[in-house]
Amino acid sequence: MTLSGCFFLPKQSPFYLFSLSYCYSSAAPSLILRPSVPRSVLRLTTPFLHRPPSHHLNPKRTIKSSSTCLKSTPTTLSAAAAASAAMAAFSEQARVPPALQLPTPPITKFKIGLCQLAVTPDKERNILHARTAIEEAAEKGAKLVVLPEIWNGPYSNDSFPVYAEDIGAGFDKSPSTAMLSEAARLLKVTIIGGSIAERDGDKLYNTCCVFDTDGNLIAKHRKIHLFDIDIPGKISFKESKTLTAGESPTVVDTEVGRIGIGICYDIRFQELAILYAARGAHLICYPGAFNTTTGPLHWELLQRARATDNQLYVATCSPARDPGAGYQAWGHSTLVGPFGEVLATTEHEEAIIVAEIDYSQTELRRTNLPLEKQRRGDLYQLVDVHRLNSK
Amino acid sequence: MTLSGCFFLPKQSPFYLFSLSYCYSSAAPSLILRPSVPRSVLRLTTPFLHRPPSHHLNPKRTIKSSSTCLKSTPTTLSAAAAASAAMAAFSEQARVPPALQLPTPPITKFKIGLCQLAVTPDKERNILHARTAIEEAAEKGAKLVVLPEIWNGPYSNDSFPVYAEDIGAGFDKSPSTAMLSEAARLLKVTIIGGSIAERDGDKLYNTCCVFDTDGNLIAKHRKIHLFDIDIPGKISFKESKTLTAGESPTVVDTEVGRIGIGICYDIRFQELAILYAARGAHLICYPGAFNTTTGPLHWELLQRARATDNQLYVATCSPARDPGAGYQAWGHSTLVGPFGEVLATTEHEEAIIVAEIDYSQTELRRTNLPLEKQRRGDLYQLVDVHRLNSK
Repeated sequence: MTLSGCFFLPKQSPFYLFSLSYCYSSAAPSLILRPSVPRSVLRLTTPFLHRPPSHHLNPKRTIKSSSTCLKSTPTTLSAAAAASAAMAAFSEQARVPPALQLPTPPITKFKIGLCQLAVTPDKERNILHARTAIEEAAEKGAKLVVLPEIWNGPYSNDSFPVYAEDIGAGFDKSPSTAMLSEAARLLKVTIIGGSIAERDGDKLYNTCCVFDTDGNLIAKHRKIHLFDIDIPGKISFKESKTLTAGESPTVVDTEVGRIGIGICYDIRFQELAILYAARGAHLICYPGAFNTTTGPLHWELLQRARATDNQLYVATCSPARDPGAGYQAWGHSTLVGPFGEVLATTEHEEAIIVAEIDYSQTELRRTNLPLEKQRRGDLYQLVDVHRLNSK
Repeated sequence: MTLSGCFFLPKQSPFYLFSLSYCYSSAAPSLILRPSVPRSVLRLTTPFLHRPPSHHLNPKRTIKSSSTCLKSTPTTLSAAAAASAAMAAFSEQARVPPALQLPTPPITKFKIGLCQLAVTPDKERNILHARTAIEEAAEKGAKLVVLPEIWNGPYSNDSFPVYAEDIGAGFDKSPSTAMLSEAARLLKVTIIGGSIAERDGDKLYNTCCVFDTDGNLIAKHRKIHLFDIDIPGKISFKESKTLTAGESPTVVDTEVGRIGIGICYDIRFQELAILYAARGAHLICYPGAFNTTTGPLHWELLQRARATDNQLYVATCSPARDPGAGYQAWGHSTLVGPFGEVLATTEHEEAIIVAEIDYSQTELRRTNLPLEKQRRGDLYQLVDVHRLNSK
């Protein structure tokens, strides 16, 4: 289809921007802006291969100017049809690029195991202990096992460099991930391996590894938002003293569905969960070690909010509390359903939670409250920068 | 300053888009895309009046290409300074346009009154009753008084057209807003007038009016997200049967700070609260009538989430429950602080809550957890479409 038309759009209209963007994604476009007129005129002198402009421009504006400008838009739309089309286009525009359809998961119902582990300064013991817990979860029927944040050594800036492993150098150099890989393969479970300190060159990261049921490392999430907070007299911590922040959101397709990964403080940033939902995640897993100040205030609240707002499952896994440790973890590993309901949780002691995930609930709740069709992309838009760049 | 340079950016990079946007806001630019090279080359052949491109382009990319491309960027930045500048720029980019600084409020500490009113089919009685409640709240020291959603008549699609008022036609035609204006003027209080059905031509809206202490109507928010939900056997409602959705977010400067307005179902859309926070709101008020199904599940959760995630005050005001009514309101009008703490709430009976707001807490919590400086605009960006268009 070759389209040659012009659109009147206000200065800096994001629709105008997106139309540039889409045009650009088609073959060899050439765009010239003519801003000397009161409202911008955008001339398309290119084959418009991917979709008609009415799909991504503000449809109301398009319709208004259709009779004079946009030759390919029918002018016989009824007001109701136009309003309906406008609302549909609005909701799609609320995510840039448009949200992906929720994929059909490979399995609808399965058990998840959350291993709230006691962590000691003895790394070898921690690895063995985690392995035993994964085995126990698998015995109880878990197809997906989640470990806590920083489970192979103490959570402290002093310890991160000491317990760090070079994950990229292979399992020989990384006993913690070697164990996870072997456990996943032998037990035929998917593992969200909590996190360990990762060394890469001269940098350290707080890193979560994901293994498929063949023991393959299928994703690696480096904590994006470092835990730098200061509540005087309560809790002060500055991960950025030793750690470097990750560069990418992480969504991975597994045998138990599409999973978004965040680590602890990542949960505070609602945008990340929105972005994962828009990428079609069924579940977000947050290994995390909230503390005894922000834990009671916000840990459950944030999980329930991410689940409710994005209508998906959220699972968290914390270390157990160690009264002798420098950092007191809040515990309370939890599974939350897509209606914000707490499906399983625990206190701060060591525990293995096994609970059922049923993705048909996600579909049900999205039918009950069709938020994704009700969003107002004419007013707000959440841009997933990496996904937009990779198109 | 005249700048002529080129930037290497990936296809459809939002930075690239924003650079177009900013360029376009300067005088008479002319842009030509040359997409035939593997990465896009954008030539600026225009005076770049407003800000240097390094401000809104991905700084890391800019720095990487600076020695070969961007003549105006110094090449002597240290790695640490560059990383620091990059992180600062990242967080600013997380809101488009960049978030406004929180303005200094005209008052730091004051009392808010939430009038959880019983609503009857008798409109005249409802107006008198609301007036009495406002007087009582003012007597108790409230400087800001909030009313419930749909307080001048029953909440039903049958009633909306019957109780609707033509607010735009002036107080003579709108006894409900006339009362609010007079009460605000006589009592010297700011009023967030809950909502009433508004008639404008052949359309009906669910509309909140805000009055200053001189009785002036200073803002009017029409519910943006209509309450269309269907939980079979529990609650089904379709406001869109009778109502039209509003077209604009609403933030208003008052004598008690900058206030964002949402009505009931608007609270489910986290983007609106993000957008209000980015516009510098101190407080978001949501008149709302959640029901006995979603009320216990989500009402407090959503308020606490909006407050915690955006680090601002949230106030809600519901009608009291009327066991004889068709629609059973959840009640539980609430004030939540910027750390997600419930500062005052009530059950479902009629009540006037008077509680203190202290904006110094907002500053404190934003210092404790500096989320706004930690956001990752290199990964996600929330676009405020109207504010971007109006620039």
